[in-house]
Amino acid sequence: MDSNAIFDLIKKKHSFLCVGLDTDINKIPSSISGYDDAVFEFNRQIIDATLPYAVAYKTNLAFYEAMGIKGMESLYKTVEYIRNKREPLFIIADAKRGDIGNTSGMYAYAYFKEMDFDAVTVSPYMGYDTVKPFLDYKGKWTVLLALTSNESAADFQYFENKAGKKLYEEVLEKAAEWGNEDNMMFVAGATKAGELQNIRKIVPGHFLLVPGVGAQGGNLREVAKYGMNEKCGIIVNASRSVIYASHGSDFAQKAGESAKVLQSEMESILKSRGYL
Amino acid sequence: MDSNAIFDLIKKKHSFLCVGLDTDINKIPSSISGYDDAVFEFNRQIIDATLPYAVAYKTNLAFYEAMGIKGMESLYKTVEYIRNKREPLFIIADAKRGDIGNTSGMYAYAYFKEMDFDAVTVSPYMGYDTVKPFLDYKGKWTVLLALTSNESAADFQYFENKAGKKLYEEVLEKAAEWGNEDNMMFVAGATKAGELQNIRKIVPGHFLLVPGVGAQGGNLREVAKYGMNEKCGIIVNASRSVIYASHGSDFAQKAGESAKVLQSEMESILKSRGYL
Repeated sequence: MDSNAIFDLIKKKHSFLCVGLDTDINKIPSSISGYDDAVFEFNRQIIDATLPYAVAYKTNLAFYEAMGIKGMESLYKTVEYIRNKREPLFIIADAKRGDIGNTSGMYAYAYFKEMDFDAVTVSPYMGYDTVKPFLDYKGKWTVLLALTSNESAADFQYFENKAGKKLYEEVLEKAAEWGNEDNMMFVAGATKAGELQNIRKIVPGHFLLVPGVGAQGGNLREVAKYGMNEKCGIIVNASRSVIYASHGSDFAQKAGESAKVLQSEMESILKSRGYL
Repeated sequence: MDSNAIFDLIKKKHSFLCVGLDTDINKIPSSISGYDDAVFEFNRQIIDATLPYAVAYKTNLAFYEAMGIKGMESLYKTVEYIRNKREPLFIIADAKRGDIGNTSGMYAYAYFKEMDFDAVTVSPYMGYDTVKPFLDYKGKWTVLLALTSNESAADFQYFENKAGKKLYEEVLEKAAEWGNEDNMMFVAGATKAGELQNIRKIVPGHFLLVPGVGAQGGNLREVAKYGMNEKCGIIVNASRSVIYASHGSDFAQKAGESAKVLQSEMESILKSRGYL
């Protein structure tokens, strides 16, 4: 999937919503806790309910690793289930990996070959040779951390050189040369919407993955205002606010409704910006 | 295990060697490729052969993830196998994780509870609240990336503020306040032994995990000269140079011999520095 294919998907579904499947075994509604693989059953129902409103799904690896081998099995089944839907969907492994070359190559193989993800989130700390193995997979995407949405993001991402350039700006500048607009996107924290304007100056053409709308508290209209480019250019993730919209037996229905609210807002933004 | 327990282990075994189990299914000798779990069998024989010479084992998560569910099963069995040895050993999950608080909490649970690792490598890029969940586990260790051994480490780790302080120095200074000498160690790339002197100025009391001796080309005596402190203070990792010392049916014996060469050198260093 290249950037045009993602843009087509956004226009087709009137949405740039990514649903984050951060599925915590301890938060599974009791109505399905009896399933042999309750995590997969939860994901399956969430996916079915949110499918009309989402262009992407993001699985957070930590949640599956925490459940051991069984969790990894749930993850594999979830990715396969999304992939078997009869429509293009963008599937992200939220893994924040990054290691020396041969090791990053193994991670890339794990997510792009062993599993069939379209994209993986990667940490830039170790530099170019740790990112390149991910970029070597044609048609796949590296989603590089630039400015994250957590409170401590400022600890190092705002570290500033004598010219007043911040580390996350340096990451954007350098990494824009490593990849292109069809294989590299950047994580841009929505809790810092003012910074999006600045990010757009550095990487006008790249897609941005924006976390933090919902439970982490970003504002969708502000994100769109400062983050969008001529191909929409943003994918906005919501995890907890969608998948845990209800803890009762109506969890899937409420997740669908919650996703629909976001999608309606996105549709209205896409229309007002002339994309639809 | 606290820093004194690690120091005791080093003195008992006359070694500060960590053997890196970066086990690649494509490099398994044909003599054991017929085993149902050839990766575990390889690790088992490597562990038995290197046990007299090693104080620590480090499993590189990428290699196991690349082999899918079966790889994760090999990993679990490997950790359990090391843990069941009738002696204290320091087991590191080389995972380079790091994510927003609740997600890092899931990773910490995965490595410290779901699996029984003593330590996990963590990336500092996202700041304090992404590291803290690992530090919350009593008796466990966070091994934070500071200066790594790969060629592109300089891309961002040398990013310098107006006072001339580099990013990796800022990471060391800040993180030394997050953890203490009994729950935080730092990755310090051995290919940059000159920098070790500088690292020791910033974190005189912390243990350092030094990769890059062997296949990555660090020099053991130089690392010891600049990296050691009064509790030895360094654990030196060798992966490929030990586990792939031979690709024949004598792989375990050759791995043992290769580990013994490193251990003898370490013993001589420990004696000359007055630790033994």
